[in-house]
Amino acid sequence: MSLLVIGTLAYDTIETIHTRRIDVLGGSAMYFSIAAGMFVPVQLVAVVGRDFRPQDLELLKKSNIDTSGVEHADGRTFRWSGRYESDWNTRHTLETQLNVFEKFEPKVPTAMRAATWVFLANAAPKVQMRALDQVTKPKFTVVDTMNLWIDTARADLLHLLRRVDAVVLNDEEARMLTGERNLIKAAGAVLGLGPRYVILKKGEHGAFLLGKDVHFSLPAYPIGDVVDPTGAGDSFAGGFMGHIAEQGNVNPETLRQAMLYGTVSASWCVQGFGIEALAGRTRREIDARYDDLRAICTVP
Amino acid sequence: MSLLVIGTLAYDTIETIHTRRIDVLGGSAMYFSIAAGMFVPVQLVAVVGRDFRPQDLELLKKSNIDTSGVEHADGRTFRWSGRYESDWNTRHTLETQLNVFEKFEPKVPTAMRAATWVFLANAAPKVQMRALDQVTKPKFTVVDTMNLWIDTARADLLHLLRRVDAVVLNDEEARMLTGERNLIKAAGAVLGLGPRYVILKKGEHGAFLLGKDVHFSLPAYPIGDVVDPTGAGDSFAGGFMGHIAEQGNVNPETLRQAMLYGTVSASWCVQGFGIEALAGRTRREIDARYDDLRAICTVP
Repeated sequence: MSLLVIGTLAYDTIETIHTRRIDVLGGSAMYFSIAAGMFVPVQLVAVVGRDFRPQDLELLKKSNIDTSGVEHADGRTFRWSGRYESDWNTRHTLETQLNVFEKFEPKVPTAMRAATWVFLANAAPKVQMRALDQVTKPKFTVVDTMNLWIDTARADLLHLLRRVDAVVLNDEEARMLTGERNLIKAAGAVLGLGPRYVILKKGEHGAFLLGKDVHFSLPAYPIGDVVDPTGAGDSFAGGFMGHIAEQGNVNPETLRQAMLYGTVSASWCVQGFGIEALAGRTRREIDARYDDLRAICTVP
Repeated sequence: MSLLVIGTLAYDTIETIHTRRIDVLGGSAMYFSIAAGMFVPVQLVAVVGRDFRPQDLELLKKSNIDTSGVEHADGRTFRWSGRYESDWNTRHTLETQLNVFEKFEPKVPTAMRAATWVFLANAAPKVQMRALDQVTKPKFTVVDTMNLWIDTARADLLHLLRRVDAVVLNDEEARMLTGERNLIKAAGAVLGLGPRYVILKKGEHGAFLLGKDVHFSLPAYPIGDVVDPTGAGDSFAGGFMGHIAEQGNVNPETLRQAMLYGTVSASWCVQGFGIEALAGRTRREIDARYDDLRAICTVP
């Protein structure tokens, strides 16, 4: 009953209205793994360059993450740089250097191919597909994507969507994918593309889950001081999948709980630069905030 | 244990991307009363001009609303006209004609001065204050306001806020009033201005209630086809206060339920032009949607 993630490890340069940080440890699979590793052991498939810092690999290992699927390739690690406006919702990508990720051919180690729970973090749909092809019998596969792929690799993405159980999208991506402005209509349209579930993330406005047997809407956890929203979506996915893997099922009750855990992971993520706030958390802190969130959202 | 509202009755001209309607029956007290009248009898204090249509007064009377506090003044009824962008969140006010509302001196009839539950719908804070002065011993007073008064009558508004139990604000108003961009911080700052509770409305993103003994956050009811968002906030307030008046208390449990009823009233409101969708509802339909909303938001 293992949890496998395929995605990026990166060094990000992040500018906020308050400060600028260079070579912050990040990447979709990084955030996901740190969040999910608080629930279950995580199997990670990714690629890094020769410049990947040994202490960053150590951090992964210490965080309940099996790094035997991390390939060390010649060249530099994937780099992204971006700037946030004061409202945190507006993000400008300043530069993307694919580096070793450009020719990344995901190789799922033999021992990881029997994974039960699979998260395909944001990457070209063809790369995601080739990773999924190597997993023998996943029970529940979730895919993430981004506007770039919706725009430039739509056919591949639509093909992939027919092979996965769930997709996580933010509001903008859901609108782009379906052409529906209204988010509840957009989510309904996404279900028509194949997945059994869609998780629609709205940042500070919360998230909702739509599927045939479940419709669940949840506000975000209120955070007074956002430091850096980078990785919030991947952290959400990590908490979500981590709880599912720990429970060992995708019953509606488990899925609802997973939405709360995803929300909690994302809320810790945005309280520090990169993974620094999230990675420092204990399971006890995660659960305490889960209880807080539950109290804030409990309907009479 | 009666519910009193002081506010506007109006004829609105509303433009959406789909259509344009002239002289649509509206006004803050109209929406509030129609929503609240499904729970308890409503006592209405307002002013209309000689052009106010008899059938519109009849509609109020048929809707559980005591119109003996509606003054008929010489001149034309208050008129507002506005245009919505395709995202529904951007609203341009095209024209405001105060007309008979310009010299409105609220006169609360003697029989209504013992009101227990009071809603001061959006008006100049001085007018709201003069209305409140006539109520002998309200148990729970809620005030609404708008950016215009925050900007031009801040001192009056701050004075009023120290005399009420709760304030309803939208996200923009909360930010303007407090200078805090983050909404949870803004809500906290509003509590510092006097009210025991703040209800912060975020349109399609839901609403939250913050007070000393309660913090409750709720997503909006998902509506696929918005027709006209005019009056959604006042309808929210109507459902909210209607339930409180019906229950006869402001326990945390009642307040949470009231947030759901407010959300339900607002969701019906936006499904038609003006009050047409909301006014046609039965209590059974309100309660059925309450149950729907509850199901969508029930945390595990």
